[in-house]
Amino acid sequence: MRPSIDQVRDLFITLQKEIVATLERLDGKEQFSSKDITYPSGGMSCPRVLQGGRRIEKAAVLFTHSMGDSLPDTATDRNPKLKGLSFQATAISLIVHPWNPYIPTTHMNLRFFLVGQVNPTWYFGGGFDLTPYYPFDEDIVFWHKSARDACSQHGDFYEELKKQCDEYFYLSHRAEHRGVGGIFFDDWCRGGFDASRDFVESVGRHFLNAYVPIFEKRVNEPWGEREEQFMLLRRGRYAEFNLLLDRGTRYGVGTGRRIESVLASLPPRVRWFYDFVPLAGSPEAALTEHYLQPRNWLEHPDTSSD
Amino acid sequence: MRPSIDQVRDLFITLQKEIVATLERLDGKEQFSSKDITYPSGGMSCPRVLQGGRRIEKAAVLFTHSMGDSLPDTATDRNPKLKGLSFQATAISLIVHPWNPYIPTTHMNLRFFLVGQVNPTWYFGGGFDLTPYYPFDEDIVFWHKSARDACSQHGDFYEELKKQCDEYFYLSHRAEHRGVGGIFFDDWCRGGFDASRDFVESVGRHFLNAYVPIFEKRVNEPWGEREEQFMLLRRGRYAEFNLLLDRGTRYGVGTGRRIESVLASLPPRVRWFYDFVPLAGSPEAALTEHYLQPRNWLEHPDTSSD
Repeated sequence: MRPSIDQVRDLFITLQKEIVATLERLDGKEQFSSKDITYPSGGMSCPRVLQGGRRIEKAAVLFTHSMGDSLPDTATDRNPKLKGLSFQATAISLIVHPWNPYIPTTHMNLRFFLVGQVNPTWYFGGGFDLTPYYPFDEDIVFWHKSARDACSQHGDFYEELKKQCDEYFYLSHRAEHRGVGGIFFDDWCRGGFDASRDFVESVGRHFLNAYVPIFEKRVNEPWGEREEQFMLLRRGRYAEFNLLLDRGTRYGVGTGRRIESVLASLPPRVRWFYDFVPLAGSPEAALTEHYLQPRNWLEHPDTSSD
Repeated sequence: MRPSIDQVRDLFITLQKEIVATLERLDGKEQFSSKDITYPSGGMSCPRVLQGGRRIEKAAVLFTHSMGDSLPDTATDRNPKLKGLSFQATAISLIVHPWNPYIPTTHMNLRFFLVGQVNPTWYFGGGFDLTPYYPFDEDIVFWHKSARDACSQHGDFYEELKKQCDEYFYLSHRAEHRGVGGIFFDDWCRGGFDASRDFVESVGRHFLNAYVPIFEKRVNEPWGEREEQFMLLRRGRYAEFNLLLDRGTRYGVGTGRRIESVLASLPPRVRWFYDFVPLAGSPEAALTEHYLQPRNWLEHPDTSSD
């Protein structure tokens, strides 16, 4: 079937509404901003940002639809033959930074590119990943089961996309993974447009199934200054990844998009403490030593049976 | 005269000691860390970092001496003919993040590269710049006078280097300058090695003359939550510049240097607030509208006569 960007756009707009409504319910106090922006070139941006909520310090759920006469270099690294062609792109991107250090930060992104006019090339990209500060094994196992479920009706993709996620969200300058992963894919056109779109919809729909139960389970976990400060320090790693390495951020910055939307993913508060070394045997040491090491979470001894 | 990297190294080590002693005096409480690091390849790094002082929230004064078999790409952007040659480099780099939003953040860097073995190419680079949050005209004029003094015995360089500073410390994604500038130079070998080294020494020596009086003048200025929060937000711009754009940071990250030294320049605390717009006519609006617009500060109507 011929690719339909309108169909993908409608899917992403629907997903954005569902996610915004769910996050507002989880927060219980603040609402998302709702100002839309249309561009003279024909594109539009619907940023939805919640700040200073009861349970969410900052969340951004952005929808954008853009078009251009020449696909930027930052989008053609892996497809040099597409360089300079006209394109349309539509994407949804979200990030949640809760107040409570026991609730992980999460990120999801889904995007679709349609490149060229005659026999256009098209591909999807996206995924979701989790960045905990004080993780619980059962939460991470649950997260990865949900990620596997997102893939399960569409092929045997989970292990491949989990590996790609571990590889992508990696701070080479720290030799450290950003979080406990999830799934990540790019240049995706497997099985044709309908199958690819269904798969992307499945990823989008499974995201809330994966995140909301973890959020609700940990929302009343008490925390103190120690956990707060450690979360702020780890959020520094997040900012480093986004500004130094993330292709999406670099694409947004390089193409002159509205900068407040591009950088809405940055954590609301960050701390850079020089030469922090966690105490041996502490939960802070466990984060990097145990959780940020890629592993097969679905073969965990305590939980593989259920 | 033949370039002597040992002479430059000794100069930078001396400057580091003087600056560390002066900043400790200004702080009045904390001392700088003093652990040195030697590399198996023959390089060394002497990071000096002060955190959580009385008046200084974080300051880093780093000396490094490094060598390698092949000059990295990040150092040869402007000199492709040097690519792949063996090199030695020595540098001092500093940043000061005071607690008080009325005291500006400042940065200085001086570096020397010696490239190749037979008839080596050499060049200096560096400069200093100022990033205020709530500036006073007289401080900025004083700063630029000191910058001009740094250049005055060595040629008529100030205007040229002031312009380069404005151009370099520019956040293109925000269409915003990082601060009120100062001087910046690169690929510097004017007048030969002795003249260049003397000029670089002059820049290094004038830095404290330029910064200390502003620090001391503003250190007892009272501030509240509003100024604090605005400083944290503006520090976000600083982090954006360093991680997205700064050549020094990208060089350090790309060459696999000790990451805690490379990123020691990052602000201790940062805030990213979505879509902040300062009130019209407020001091916060004046920062971007008045101060972060490059101008000739030495032709200021009130002060050009002295």
